[in-house]
Amino acid sequence: MNITVWNEFRHEQRNDKVKAIYPQGIHAVLASFLQEENHHVTTATLDEAQHGLTDEVLNKTDVLLWWGHIAHDEVDDAIVQKVQQRVLDGMGLIVLHSGHFSKIFKTLMGTSCDLKWREATDKERLWVVDPSHPIAAGIGEYVELENEEMYGEHFDIPAPDELIFVSWFTGGEVFRSGVTYKRGNGKIFYFRPGHETYPTYHNEQIQTILKNAVQWAAPVKRERPVYGNAQPLETLKGE
Amino acid sequence: MNITVWNEFRHEQRNDKVKAIYPQGIHAVLASFLQEENHHVTTATLDEAQHGLTDEVLNKTDVLLWWGHIAHDEVDDAIVQKVQQRVLDGMGLIVLHSGHFSKIFKTLMGTSCDLKWREATDKERLWVVDPSHPIAAGIGEYVELENEEMYGEHFDIPAPDELIFVSWFTGGEVFRSGVTYKRGNGKIFYFRPGHETYPTYHNEQIQTILKNAVQWAAPVKRERPVYGNAQPLETLKGE
Amino acid sequence: MNITVWNEFRHEQRNDKVKAIYPQGIHAVLASFLQEENHHVTTATLDEAQHGLTDEVLNKTDVLLWWGHIAHDEVDDAIVQKVQQRVLDGMGLIVLHSGHFSKIFKTLMGTSCDLKWREATDKERLWVVDPSHPIAAGIGEYVELENEEMYGEHFDIPAPDELIFVSWFTGGEVFRSGVTYKRGNGKIFYFRPGHETYPTYHNEQIQTILKNAVQWAAPVKRERPVYGNAQPLETLKGE
Amino acid sequence: MNITVWNEFRHEQRNDKVKAIYPQGIHAVLASFLQEENHHVTTATLDEAQHGLTDEVLNKTDVLLWWGHIAHDEVDDAIVQKVQQRVLDGMGLIVLHSGHFSKIFKTLMGTSCDLKWREATDKERLWVVDPSHPIAAGIGEYVELENEEMYGEHFDIPAPDELIFVSWFTGGEVFRSGVTYKRGNGKIFYFRPGHETYPTYHNEQIQTILKNAVQWAAPVKRERPVYGNAQPLETLKGE
Repeated sequence: MNITVWNEFRHEQRNDKVKAIYPQGIHAVLASFLQEENHHVTTATLDEAQHGLTDEVLNKTDVLLWWGHIAHDEVDDAIVQKVQQRVLDGMGLIVLHSGHFSKIFKTLMGTSCDLKWREATDKERLWVVDPSHPIAAGIGEYVELENEEMYGEHFDIPAPDELIFVSWFTGGEVFRSGVTYKRGNGKIFYFRPGHETYPTYHNEQIQTILKNAVQWAAPVKRERPVYGNAQPLETLKGE
Repeated sequence: MNITVWNEFRHEQRNDKVKAIYPQGIHAVLASFLQEENHHVTTATLDEAQHGLTDEVLNKTDVLLWWGHIAHDEVDDAIVQKVQQRVLDGMGLIVLHSGHFSKIFKTLMGTSCDLKWREATDKERLWVVDPSHPIAAGIGEYVELENEEMYGEHFDIPAPDELIFVSWFTGGEVFRSGVTYKRGNGKIFYFRPGHETYPTYHNEQIQTILKNAVQWAAPVKRERPVYGNAQPLETLKGE
Repeated sequence: MNITVWNEFRHEQRNDKVKAIYPQGIHAVLASFLQEENHHVTTATLDEAQHGLTDEVLNKTDVLLWWGHIAHDEVDDAIVQKVQQRVLDGMGLIVLHSGHFSKIFKTLMGTSCDLKWREATDKERLWVVDPSHPIAAGIGEYVELENEEMYGEHFDIPAPDELIFVSWFTGGEVFRSGVTYKRGNGKIFYFRPGHETYPTYHNEQIQTILKNAVQWAAPVKRERPVYGNAQPLETLKGE
Repeated sequence: MNITVWNEFRHEQRNDKVKAIYPQGIHAVLASFLQEENHHVTTATLDEAQHGLTDEVLNKTDVLLWWGHIAHDEVDDAIVQKVQQRVLDGMGLIVLHSGHFSKIFKTLMGTSCDLKWREATDKERLWVVDPSHPIAAGIGEYVELENEEMYGEHFDIPAPDELIFVSWFTGGEVFRSGVTYKRGNGKIFYFRPGHETYPTYHNEQIQTILKNAVQWAAPVKRERPVYGNAQPLETLKGE
């Protein structure tokens, strides 16, 4: 599969703490472990021309990962529209952590995608609530992250097609942390963890989940549906 | 409840066939039978200032019905955004027939909302597939409409939260005709029938369904969720 | 509406702590606050003839509440089957707390309905994750129960039709605490809290949720679907 | 994968028309095309000891297909319970056509699984309503079966987790023909077509769908959840 990892790539260039964890950027770490699965993985970032998401790149992408945070507004609406169209055409999309507020996620959800948050000393424990789901393959009953940003309910998303993970936080909150949606011919997985100041994407269980998610989000090979004016397939009245 | 019936109101002024069926407009007929339920019903149309959807009107509307077709593009984006916000805040929304292609429905769904269609001599039979749903109260196993425009699958909508009606058409097609969604604090019902050249909204069973839908879509009375930075409810580590 | 509150009624007669909280039984407290809504409420208990669930009682019951724990096995299979049939025919069913392991709930779910549990000093906080749901009307962002038995995931239930509440527990667990299902013409609400040694059903917010649930679970008034051999509604080939 | 195809295998031995289509039994045809995918496929039939479903067979089966019709009642309850347990433990289950009334399907659904039916000259057209689903891979907008038994709504099943196919029938009915469920760690696909007097399982598109379904239903490799009394993962009050 052709995987494209998109990253805003701003924190890593400005903040020493983040740089220490992700010296080449969050996208480099994501790309690195996804390559282990023999996917063809490339990266794209906000400050490239067309954010690195040219028609050529998008058209050959099977699954796109999206990490963004402080510069959602800088993403060109025209590119957002192209990504949306590609999802409707079948491309998988994996939206990570603060990507909940990205234009592409909000556009595909139709809601505010707002939530509670806190940068403090919370522990996160992600419980598997759908043990039959391939995205949970190889994962124990829960994944524990010693330090993560808290995201709390209410998370203003449509009722997910599937709810795979629910998070517990020290401070008393819960969160629907791993949710799937289908839109058109494409599949979407939102996955909560991944705050830039913690080494979350270095965690092997988190890597397993994302490897699984990429497989799950693979486009289905079939002709796209035909829309518009349609001739009858059966004889109508008076014919 | 305060119900607002929004109608594009163009066909009825241009096309004699439509005018004959809906002399005062589709909105007038919708308003008329909804008033029988002791709701406070008002109407709003495209060519009024702000399409009749001022802040004052929207803020007091509990459930909004939406019929549009040939002038979706003339609906002001700013009004669409306000309607979306009101739905997220709890207002019910009932989208009718060709309203599947309205800006507000596409915005709330995140998909193309495209479909197959045909104006011919199809009969439509709407089968109840969720007999437990209050929107189907008082309705038999199916509703038969001797003449209706055909809408066929694939209907490019998110998987509905609830599927209540599935239509059969003479020409060999099927369609998910009555579907519900929740978005934020609001509820949405899309209902397929209602082509302007047929007397569909004069049909008593269709009227029953829409009366039920208005009740179902009523806003829930509660404080809206709080979003943003949140203090912990429990003691964090190191505190 | 005619409400029947069914209770095993064993703990209250054996355990002084439980008796102190529910001197007339859990059913008496449930019945008491439901009566405030002008429902006609009766009770039935395990040790009555036919567990108090005669055909006459069942046939006129609109919504049945079910609390059981230590004597699930003593419930007659024939009665379970009748209750199942009544749910399929439209009766609402509200299953409470340890009722997750009742024969009727397991029969309607088709799964083990197993879970993790702990009687200790956990606090429970039930977060509303579906703010549009009528069962959450009048409820704040969460309900806090200072002491409750812990139930933890994985909860072996089918993916709920609707997920309304998710619980946080002190000990590090989460739980899908308020879930809805439809089965046939009937609606089911499972609600987690209600351990016999805590005064949970005296809590006003819990009472509000159960009052809402009873309204939501009300049977839909319509003819039941017809099954079996069916004549064609349209002309078949060769006719 | 280890696939077991279970067949009642009665019609084929009694009815010449069925025998002509499936001389070695429906199971032989199903096994034959599934073997093309390099699965290890075995068959089992009602009249074998333990219906061919010994513990050894069940325990190594990854996906079980089930075709039954006139002898549902002859299936031993103890075997049904073992199959249910295997599904909850992760085994995939594909229920075919008249298997809607099998003990195992009714047990896993919790409903009557009843429907309308007619043996006549209906054509069936199965429309894909979820183009993103892997079970629809390689399938066009619809599959047309020139002759099939009619099954019509209301189909008394729980709201499916996913709805993939909706059927149109000549006689005026519709049907939810391809639906998925998860139960415990296992996945279930119900697929409507396959009446014994028609060569449905010789149809290449039907074969493609079933090949896809087997892949989709594959068990997830992970430790099963732990249930029962649980120690806290965090420090409780007063500890």
